[in-house]
Amino acid sequence: MKNLYVFKVGGNVIEDKHSLTLFVKNFVEIQGEKILVHGGGKTASEISKKLGITPKMIEGRRITDAQSLEVVTMVYAGLTNKKIVAQLQSAACNAIGLTGADGNLISAQKRIHPTIDYGFVGDFEPADVNTTLIQTLLANDLTPVCCAITHDGTGQLLNTNADTIAANIAVACSSYYKVMLVYCFEKEGVMRDIQDKNSVIKKIDSHEYQVLKKDGIIAGGMIPKIDSCFYALKNGVDSVSIKNAMRFTDSSGTTLAL
Amino acid sequence: MKNLYVFKVGGNVIEDKHSLTLFVKNFVEIQGEKILVHGGGKTASEISKKLGITPKMIEGRRITDAQSLEVVTMVYAGLTNKKIVAQLQSAACNAIGLTGADGNLISAQKRIHPTIDYGFVGDFEPADVNTTLIQTLLANDLTPVCCAITHDGTGQLLNTNADTIAANIAVACSSYYKVMLVYCFEKEGVMRDIQDKNSVIKKIDSHEYQVLKKDGIIAGGMIPKIDSCFYALKNGVDSVSIKNAMRFTDSSGTTLAL
Repeated sequence: MKNLYVFKVGGNVIEDKHSLTLFVKNFVEIQGEKILVHGGGKTASEISKKLGITPKMIEGRRITDAQSLEVVTMVYAGLTNKKIVAQLQSAACNAIGLTGADGNLISAQKRIHPTIDYGFVGDFEPADVNTTLIQTLLANDLTPVCCAITHDGTGQLLNTNADTIAANIAVACSSYYKVMLVYCFEKEGVMRDIQDKNSVIKKIDSHEYQVLKKDGIIAGGMIPKIDSCFYALKNGVDSVSIKNAMRFTDSSGTTLAL
Repeated sequence: MKNLYVFKVGGNVIEDKHSLTLFVKNFVEIQGEKILVHGGGKTASEISKKLGITPKMIEGRRITDAQSLEVVTMVYAGLTNKKIVAQLQSAACNAIGLTGADGNLISAQKRIHPTIDYGFVGDFEPADVNTTLIQTLLANDLTPVCCAITHDGTGQLLNTNADTIAANIAVACSSYYKVMLVYCFEKEGVMRDIQDKNSVIKKIDSHEYQVLKKDGIIAGGMIPKIDSCFYALKNGVDSVSIKNAMRFTDSSGTTLAL
């Protein structure tokens, strides 16, 4: 099987012009077939604020109402995605930007929850990823750049977690490729002490993960991210790591293992 | 040669939910390979206004400064393009949204003008269209949906006239396909009297065009549109027509001829 790298890059990297340039420089150096999945929430929040849209929260969860969906569609699929694509093109990487609607890449379902209406938020499984499209694009030297918008097949766009998109694409593609999933962000990896750059945990296995969670060392937003990592490893992805977006080509960062 | 339809649809059609639904219904009925190019200026103006961005005009021409470029990128490539793609997907048309940066579809140059700095506005020739990408997408049953954003290959996105994009794509593809170029908008075609729906001019040839311009019957924004039509006809496109977006499958509207 051919190698395929699936990279997820966080908003703090791609929303800063200088960081984006450095990331792109590293990304194009990766030889072989690759897919990029990106977030971009900070710009979406800024634009929302400028447009006078107040974020709706229910029980501490952000709700994607119709107005918020328009903003994330504009920002993720328009502004952020096209900036990345144009940057990659300038570095001789034949990038093509996609939402889940484009070429029916990802068909999701609006989230159903017994007590909270999350609004236009989509969930999906690896089986909902159009691997034929991915294979066609990769075989034609195109590099998919996927943003965090999917659709439900009835014309409705849906806001979808970018970490989940990366994990599900990686799992779906593992039937056809040897897949390396790399989560890149502004930190050095998973750290014992967020203040100490040298406290990166080099390797985390399932057992260690439980201990780190119990001890409160892994907490908050890092939990769903690492859950995505283990989900990917358990479902056919060859390797998963969490790295600094400026240094993902070296051996730094955290490697996950079952 | 296979048939290829290149449709340009105007903002007044796609920015209205009901009109977009009707247009999509007609569009998917067209058998064979097709490309859609769309505008979307009205929403861009509305979002600009909400964001407090005042349109810059020099000598009566709209200038695309950095802020305006961000807005048109958000609106054309994000909001409008993805709404159309999701609608087409719901009607079983495997649409894929593109700017000129995606897959390097169109490499343009920033407009150079002796007296006016138009800002981030791009111009290009049919030779700058990536027909290999178009052929790959069409051969894989994908329907390109192109918005009015291009790039210059150095990472810079550029605002580009959608009528020109449609004409240049049509000309570029005429080496590989028998191309029918159809400009669709909210009117019935080219009319002798804008108030009279029954005054559609069925056929306009080059000579008639000069007369209609001289008499002031064709004026304003219709002139560059019809210039694009004749440019396409002179450069290999098989047929060009201007039609109502709700009725483009019948024989109504205006047909252009050399």
